Amino acid sequence: MDSVKYLLNENQLPTAWYNIQADLPQPLPAVLHPGTQQPVTFEDMRPLFADALLEQEFSTERWIPIPDPVRDIYRQWRPTPLYRARRLEKALDTPAKIYYKYEGLSPAGSHKPNTAFPQAYYNAQQGVKRLTTETGAGQWGSSLAIAGVMFNLEILVYMVKVSYQQKPYRRALMEAYNARVVASPSTETAAGRQILAQSPDSSGSLGIAISEAVEVAAQAEDTKYTLGSVLNHVLLHQTVIGLEAIAQFDLAQDYPDIIVGCTGGGSNFAGIAFPFMQHTFSGDKTIEFIAVEPVSCPTLTQGKYAYDFGDTAQMTPLIKMHTLGHSFVPPGIHAGGLRYHGMGPLVSHLVNLDYVKPLAYDQLDCFAAGLTFAKAEGILPAPEANHAVQGAIAQALRCKAEGVSKTILFNLCGHGHFDMQAYIDYQAGKLQTSEYSPEEVAMALAGLPSVNH
Amino acid sequence: MDSVKYLLNENQLPTAWYNIQADLPQPLPAVLHPGTQQPVTFEDMRPLFADALLEQEFSTERWIPIPDPVRDIYRQWRPTPLYRARRLEKALDTPAKIYYKYEGLSPAGSHKPNTAFPQAYYNAQQGVKRLTTETGAGQWGSSLAIAGVMFNLEILVYMVKVSYQQKPYRRALMEAYNARVVASPSTETAAGRQILAQSPDSSGSLGIAISEAVEVAAQAEDTKYTLGSVLNHVLLHQTVIGLEAIAQFDLAQDYPDIIVGCTGGGSNFAGIAFPFMQHTFSGDKTIEFIAVEPVSCPTLTQGKYAYDFGDTAQMTPLIKMHTLGHSFVPPGIHAGGLRYHGMGPLVSHLVNLDYVKPLAYDQLDCFAAGLTFAKAEGILPAPEANHAVQGAIAQALRCKAEGVSKTILFNLCGHGHFDMQAYIDYQAGKLQTSEYSPEEVAMALAGLPSVNH
Repeated sequence: MDSVKYLLNENQLPTAWYNIQADLPQPLPAVLHPGTQQPVTFEDMRPLFADALLEQEFSTERWIPIPDPVRDIYRQWRPTPLYRARRLEKALDTPAKIYYKYEGLSPAGSHKPNTAFPQAYYNAQQGVKRLTTETGAGQWGSSLAIAGVMFNLEILVYMVKVSYQQKPYRRALMEAYNARVVASPSTETAAGRQILAQSPDSSGSLGIAISEAVEVAAQAEDTKYTLGSVLNHVLLHQTVIGLEAIAQFDLAQDYPDIIVGCTGGGSNFAGIAFPFMQHTFSGDKTIEFIAVEPVSCPTLTQGKYAYDFGDTAQMTPLIKMHTLGHSFVPPGIHAGGLRYHGMGPLVSHLVNLDYVKPLAYDQLDCFAAGLTFAKAEGILPAPEANHAVQGAIAQALRCKAEGVSKTILFNLCGHGHFDMQAYIDYQAGKLQTSEYSPEEVAMALAGLPSVNH
Repeated sequence: MDSVKYLLNENQLPTAWYNIQADLPQPLPAVLHPGTQQPVTFEDMRPLFADALLEQEFSTERWIPIPDPVRDIYRQWRPTPLYRARRLEKALDTPAKIYYKYEGLSPAGSHKPNTAFPQAYYNAQQGVKRLTTETGAGQWGSSLAIAGVMFNLEILVYMVKVSYQQKPYRRALMEAYNARVVASPSTETAAGRQILAQSPDSSGSLGIAISEAVEVAAQAEDTKYTLGSVLNHVLLHQTVIGLEAIAQFDLAQDYPDIIVGCTGGGSNFAGIAFPFMQHTFSGDKTIEFIAVEPVSCPTLTQGKYAYDFGDTAQMTPLIKMHTLGHSFVPPGIHAGGLRYHGMGPLVSHLVNLDYVKPLAYDQLDCFAAGLTFAKAEGILPAPEANHAVQGAIAQALRCKAEGVSKTILFNLCGHGHFDMQAYIDYQAGKLQTSEYSPEEVAMALAGLPSVNH
């Protein structure tokens, strides 16, 4: 029996994003102004973000309509397929049913364009001329570059230095779409210069790159800042993934018992999980939600749920989230998309409320899982996505050990065609396990800001 | 107005391949045994190819059923979308309508799996244990590697040395699927050793790599040879592309006036063109078919239509085709998939009969065209596919100059995510125009075998 694809018609493309803030059992803790420690307001944030995106950030409306021009662009690669991975099930000899949603068919090869296009659209609508952002692996930066060139926006990307050096091809992809890419920390910003003064050899981090991108946006009238994960409106845009998956499970006449996604800032996990979580909140269904992170950046499993800055230079508001401390610089593992010190506040909140179970896996196990998947299903996953594959395979093997048949869904958030150097290094035995000691984590956490909430 | 996607339902996936040999206005010249100069027989070829594939090679049946297990695998990424490139039309300010069929959504990122899976399937059915092949850019080798691992076949790939060196990531991809990849010319075969004795620094060619792969297959009982282009059965498998496109043009209520594809051995061009050519043969429609090749390997535009060997070591039968001579070694341009000295005999025959017009373009123009396309439509094409993009853009600009609106269809045969080094070199001004002088071509052609047909 071969693997099966469940497709939707174009007219089944969602017309609205699902806003989980409407259904949270407890409201999300407010984001705080770092000076006053009072909740930030719409006005506080206007210098950085387009109005429409800020409205989404604060909204508690359940459904946010997707503008027609965005749906027109979504249609280029959406609805994406849902697969039943029968060949993988057979290879694992598991009684579990394994489904995956495949987001690697977008022009950037990952789920990131789901939010890059609406962010570019709303900014262009508002007359913004330039967008700044940061990127780790380059998945987000290349997605924003594509969206930018289509909406006639200049794109300025601060790329974490270690990724800039390890991934020249990702940089070339951004440049092919006219984006300007700067290795971070750079000398172009006060934040970058400050880091370089302290650590001239800094390999950078998402936290540092965010500081630089925010600084530039805050100082220029025609420029706004954009983020590829973490924020509520970013996670909101990704819910097209899960909304499609719900319709596809109807086609398959099945329903997931377990949903697995990898988490860096939380956007692809939220994208697949949140629309299903609505069913769990309402009591209609019970699903086990599993967020998989790398042991080398164990935000959810070893971090603290506390108020922290989103960036290293302490320029952002204070966000209640799982964090390893805004000064935490994770080692340069290849899954650059999973190297953020913090986590999307919505994901953190749901972990804190016990709706989401976090698990950390070693990247070596994740690469092995990715190759097992590739040999069974044909698609070679991105290193980030390998964490979700490993999470799903671990659950399938648990089912086998326990002799139970469960339905597992995971999000295959991108293909690995840009990440062959990581596969070369893995196959050559050059990748290391890079686990953190509790002492190192404790030290990074010691720098958390003191907040009265 | 945004670009538009025309999708088919899964049940519109073709059930049979279209065999153009049933409808040729004049039959294809026979392939000749090099010793006897008599037409080769089914029995002559059995040591090299699976029986079912040989039957297809010689068949003049119009429709060849696609086996269900192959259709099950095609369904993983097929039917592929047809797009109306409205944003590109707008960027070019052309009255022409531009459509493209996108084959980059397969697990290998190109059209090659369309034939890799059936070839692996028929060989596995016959009990073959190992397949040998050659690859240029690595598109074909990686596709066969994926098909091999799924059908439990060992895969041995002779990779043209210049590509082996330029494209370590393509090699890594093949190895991720368990294929063994050898740089050609190698010391593992008599053909390879002979070349290396004459030219120790040989950068290889598809002709040389074919000699090596054929030699190994001919000598081992459990091993067959496979080819990613040129042969009739390979072009046959690619006709799923054009058959789907016909149904999609029905959806669009339109029909192409001009069809453009790039040609190395001819398979992706044949795939999109042949099913439509049936309408031209029958007189129902008139379409201009344009085959685009690089000026650095100008097989159709400067080669001779003559009997020649398919490989450098003169191990294959004699094929009537456009050829630059089996000793021709084209320069190491990045579009490695377009570097073959010969051409599919069916494509050559149709060029000779004036059904297909060949055009050669400079790779610099093709890269520029590819970037124009990427910025308009979001997808970055492979360097090979850039030749088709350039061909289509040239036609669209001709329409603009002439003030006529024509409907142009081209085949976007693969994405460029593996080819970022080529884009880096292009953007840095490092790529050269590599045109051939008539003297060089004449010299290579002087080595053609003398044949009494």
